[in-house]
Amino acid sequence: MAAEETSGKGLLIKSDTVAEAFHNEVKSGLASCSRPPKLVGILASSSAPSRSYATFTKKQCEDLGFQFVLKTTGAAESPDLGEGEGVEEAIIEANEDETVDGIMVYYPIFNVQQDGYLQQVVSPLKDVEGLNVKFHYNLYHNIRFIKPGSLLAAEPSRIATALSSSDEVPPGTVKSILPCTPLAVVKCLEHVGVYNTLLKYGDRAYGKTITVVNRSEVVGRPLAALLSNDGARVFSVDIDSVQEYTKRPQTESTQARKYHPHHIVHSCSKTLQECLALSDVVITAVPSASYKVKTDWLKDGCVCVNVSSEKNFEKDVREKASIYIPAVGKVTILMLLRNLLRLRQYQDVLRQDSEQR
Amino acid sequence: MAAEETSGKGLLIKSDTVAEAFHNEVKSGLASCSRPPKLVGILASSSAPSRSYATFTKKQCEDLGFQFVLKTTGAAESPDLGEGEGVEEAIIEANEDETVDGIMVYYPIFNVQQDGYLQQVVSPLKDVEGLNVKFHYNLYHNIRFIKPGSLLAAEPSRIATALSSSDEVPPGTVKSILPCTPLAVVKCLEHVGVYNTLLKYGDRAYGKTITVVNRSEVVGRPLAALLSNDGARVFSVDIDSVQEYTKRPQTESTQARKYHPHHIVHSCSKTLQECLALSDVVITAVPSASYKVKTDWLKDGCVCVNVSSEKNFEKDVREKASIYIPAVGKVTILMLLRNLLRLRQYQDVLRQDSEQR
Repeated sequence: MAAEETSGKGLLIKSDTVAEAFHNEVKSGLASCSRPPKLVGILASSSAPSRSYATFTKKQCEDLGFQFVLKTTGAAESPDLGEGEGVEEAIIEANEDETVDGIMVYYPIFNVQQDGYLQQVVSPLKDVEGLNVKFHYNLYHNIRFIKPGSLLAAEPSRIATALSSSDEVPPGTVKSILPCTPLAVVKCLEHVGVYNTLLKYGDRAYGKTITVVNRSEVVGRPLAALLSNDGARVFSVDIDSVQEYTKRPQTESTQARKYHPHHIVHSCSKTLQECLALSDVVITAVPSASYKVKTDWLKDGCVCVNVSSEKNFEKDVREKASIYIPAVGKVTILMLLRNLLRLRQYQDVLRQDSEQR
Repeated sequence: MAAEETSGKGLLIKSDTVAEAFHNEVKSGLASCSRPPKLVGILASSSAPSRSYATFTKKQCEDLGFQFVLKTTGAAESPDLGEGEGVEEAIIEANEDETVDGIMVYYPIFNVQQDGYLQQVVSPLKDVEGLNVKFHYNLYHNIRFIKPGSLLAAEPSRIATALSSSDEVPPGTVKSILPCTPLAVVKCLEHVGVYNTLLKYGDRAYGKTITVVNRSEVVGRPLAALLSNDGARVFSVDIDSVQEYTKRPQTESTQARKYHPHHIVHSCSKTLQECLALSDVVITAVPSASYKVKTDWLKDGCVCVNVSSEKNFEKDVREKASIYIPAVGKVTILMLLRNLLRLRQYQDVLRQDSEQR
């Protein structure tokens, strides 16, 4: 990895560099498919950022040889239609269409509640974004594998017999799907060495203190859970509260310290400034142009990652940060395609399994 | 039904009157149970209204002979604990406890997104509030029955064989569970004659125009869907938009009019004032003490129902309303107990079914 700009002290790492490492994996996955996987993007709002993200997804998919079909509905289709009109029908159609392997929906459409409902309407077998509660539940409980039959909508009792199990993956199970944005952040942190590969798998962020600013269900909360499941001490900061996520709660004596198989969450009386002073890594995902983390508050030499489409760090962030990653979008798309390839494989497994019966 | 106050022109109907009609049903359901069903209430926030609602539930349950256990956690348990701390663990414990028949969680705890996640963690087989996406999906699609096996969490292929089917309920299925607050409103409207029992089941609100103020996922949106599935033309009004829910979209010619098996949603350019001028029924669920529907805007002789814990109508509402129902809480509790009895029955069916194998 190399500095791509010379101003400031810290390294500027663009997400292209991180994404590159996954190009080969995704391309070889694609090569082993009988036909190119088909991703359907559903755009139902008049939001300009959503439309440009849809264009971006389409280009990235097609550049890598994936089929991408954009389905517009509601205000995205015609000014006569309301925001989100027809979006649920479009999702159901894509769920039922056997030629569709993955579905991504451009949020926000309605409000967070109604969008949350739509996220659960997408079939988990086509949920490339990893937003289904089954996946989130697993993430929050550090359950890394799932029985593919449990992803079927109705009355499944199929246990996949066609799975090639490995040391890592228990028999009869496959890897659970992780939400793509939080996963992209983890991949960036692995890339810049925050994850220590000498430590055992599942605990490679042990010893790191990380602040995550934002606690939405789509980015901040699953990200805090992922990082703490991997051993980090995480401060999750939102407008009205600070929480601490950790597998290793502090106690008086080191001997008495209970180690948890997955993170637990405590409320925390620290201020953002106090959290930042302790943090080796600072990740922001605040959807506001005016929100800025003060460079003065950063611990010297920390790693800063901006996930928001707005710039949440000040211009001089690299005066304090040793590494600054200004965006993760390109890695997110690769994680999405990796999820797509996996789900395609799980669908195949279930198909073979039902044919054998 | 009788006026319970004499001031104003319109009738004041208290929800006790409506609730009374369901006492016998719930009591005879209870009598046929081998042991009193056990409802667990989970209180995890320091919110005073939540605590008093919990006290209210407990009293109502015990008065009717149901077992109610209040489990406190987080800020409800101790000021040293954070808001919502331990709530997910408490839900999981109640999911797994075979002596627990139903679970209700006192929201709000976190934000709507995270609360939405928790709603999906509650086992659908114990979801007395009817908040699981399976139930909401059915409601939005006017699917009134469900296979009980589809409520099991993992790998179920059980088709209930022990079900007593009727003309109304297709074989192998049971009634889907409806969210209790919207259902309580429907029962109130049935009670005051808004539903016409001469019309066929499933279309008894045909001809009625109804405004629902609030479009939350817990009350307003499912309520608009329920009412329009039953044939009403519904204006769903929220802070930033008006939508029309109907099974019978307006077209140029009456002949060409398409009748839909379930409601469809259109954006609507009418103002609240225009909606109210057309509405036979006005239902409000705005959680704000300062929000008031102007009496001047009501259609003379309409039915007004306030679902909010605040008073959303002006004091003189009965100068225009023919019937005013100021609260629905007592009916909500009875619907919750009815859901509890049904779920208990579904659990029994699944148990018998698995023993037969």
